[in-house]
Amino acid sequence: MSVLGRLSLNQATVRPLSVADAAALCVRHEIPAIGLWREQVADAGLDAAAKTVRSAGLRVSSLCRGGFFTHADAGARRAAIADNKAAIAEASALGAGTLVLVSGGLVPGSRDIGLARRMIADAIGELVPVAHAHGVRLGIEALHPMFAADRCVITRLGEALDLALEFPADAAGVVVDTYHLWWDAALLADIARAGERIVSYQVCDWILPLPADTLLGRGHVGDGHIDFPPITAAVAAAGYTGDIEVEIFNETVWSAPPDETAARLRATFPGVF
Amino acid sequence: MSVLGRLSLNQATVRPLSVADAAALCVRHEIPAIGLWREQVADAGLDAAAKTVRSAGLRVSSLCRGGFFTHADAGARRAAIADNKAAIAEASALGAGTLVLVSGGLVPGSRDIGLARRMIADAIGELVPVAHAHGVRLGIEALHPMFAADRCVITRLGEALDLALEFPADAAGVVVDTYHLWWDAALLADIARAGERIVSYQVCDWILPLPADTLLGRGHVGDGHIDFPPITAAVAAAGYTGDIEVEIFNETVWSAPPDETAARLRATFPGVF
Repeated sequence: MSVLGRLSLNQATVRPLSVADAAALCVRHEIPAIGLWREQVADAGLDAAAKTVRSAGLRVSSLCRGGFFTHADAGARRAAIADNKAAIAEASALGAGTLVLVSGGLVPGSRDIGLARRMIADAIGELVPVAHAHGVRLGIEALHPMFAADRCVITRLGEALDLALEFPADAAGVVVDTYHLWWDAALLADIARAGERIVSYQVCDWILPLPADTLLGRGHVGDGHIDFPPITAAVAAAGYTGDIEVEIFNETVWSAPPDETAARLRATFPGVF
Repeated sequence: MSVLGRLSLNQATVRPLSVADAAALCVRHEIPAIGLWREQVADAGLDAAAKTVRSAGLRVSSLCRGGFFTHADAGARRAAIADNKAAIAEASALGAGTLVLVSGGLVPGSRDIGLARRMIADAIGELVPVAHAHGVRLGIEALHPMFAADRCVITRLGEALDLALEFPADAAGVVVDTYHLWWDAALLADIARAGERIVSYQVCDWILPLPADTLLGRGHVGDGHIDFPPITAAVAAAGYTGDIEVEIFNETVWSAPPDETAARLRATFPGVF
């Protein structure tokens, strides 16, 4: 199989597009897989979205995203659990084997990062049986430490993996995202240790300067500072053979014509290997 | 001794001030130590700066900074070594026991983060005998991973420590800086492991949103999301009894009246403990 057979378009890369338009884009550009987002799936309607991607012959490499477990109020924590259960059911309906989790930052009003971490572990513990029952794996994602306070206190692959290892492998795994993890001296060792726990591999590049909104500073593969081949080789050596999502949050990319973006993904994707 | 007896004003917090003005500010506010910067020391003249801080009765908690070892050109690498040797001599002349090192980002034109790390280890190896001869300890500083590409590929305390441990303890140690390290799940364990290798403890807070220039996003203690007491307790348990520098890069702080800033440091410093 050509490497392009593993390319997946994460919908965040073409955020303005509906599920139908993103799926059609994949078909036009022979991109065989798509990573869906709940917001766009909800806009389309779950059943219609599932039908659209199935009819298009696309694999669904992941559903983004669950998480955001850290709340001061018990009612808000319960609501997050309920919402994540719904997300698991949606992933199952869409044929996505993985639900990506962005677990949440510090608990509002608190500086206790350990409390946030324990809250996340407890929440995942509640979700694991549900994920198991639906045949969906929870993909615990470590985010770049610059998001630790407000989005995700899990900041390293090793930390995500230690958490995943508390649960059965068929329900809990980790996401390897180059943007979030490339700087970590322990990354390759942690990928090796993760082995079959890797449930998603997402790529985009680290570009400078960071924009005012650091959420939107991601670049096309090859535009930035990340050395992809050693990371991809480690992910492969760990046993991951699944789709590789290109996920680029960037307003310039969002305002580009989607066909240009898709063509660019195909052209740059070999640089991942 | 009151906790204020350990307060040190890092000169970066009042960047517009000369050494003489910063020293006078410390005296006015009964701040017993100062962390100097080479640029301002050069402006004052080394001998004059040394005399100023000595006459003021101030301890010099560190000199900032050496480093920036990662260059593609051998001549530039040699120039960096020479500059760092000069910085060690300056630290010695100033009575600073520690030279803080910001080691450098990726080698220009290269994405090989391992190459940058090896280059740094080699450079520190060259400097250790010089530091030893001058009675100065090199303080290897891990910077926040958002600076990995352009300023420092050493991103975690554990990584800085592993590097320091390659060299004798009287010449190589680590800097614990809350701003750069607070998010790391292994931080407290790495502080314990560092023990006598801790040669500097610097504090400031992590505030959101990050400014456009992420170098300048630091806050006064208490203004942000960092839980200082557990970190300070770990640093103390590791055996560090030295000065604690407040180092705040922030344009708003720089434009505030220095006496206000100094008073604020005294008022907020107990929050570190």
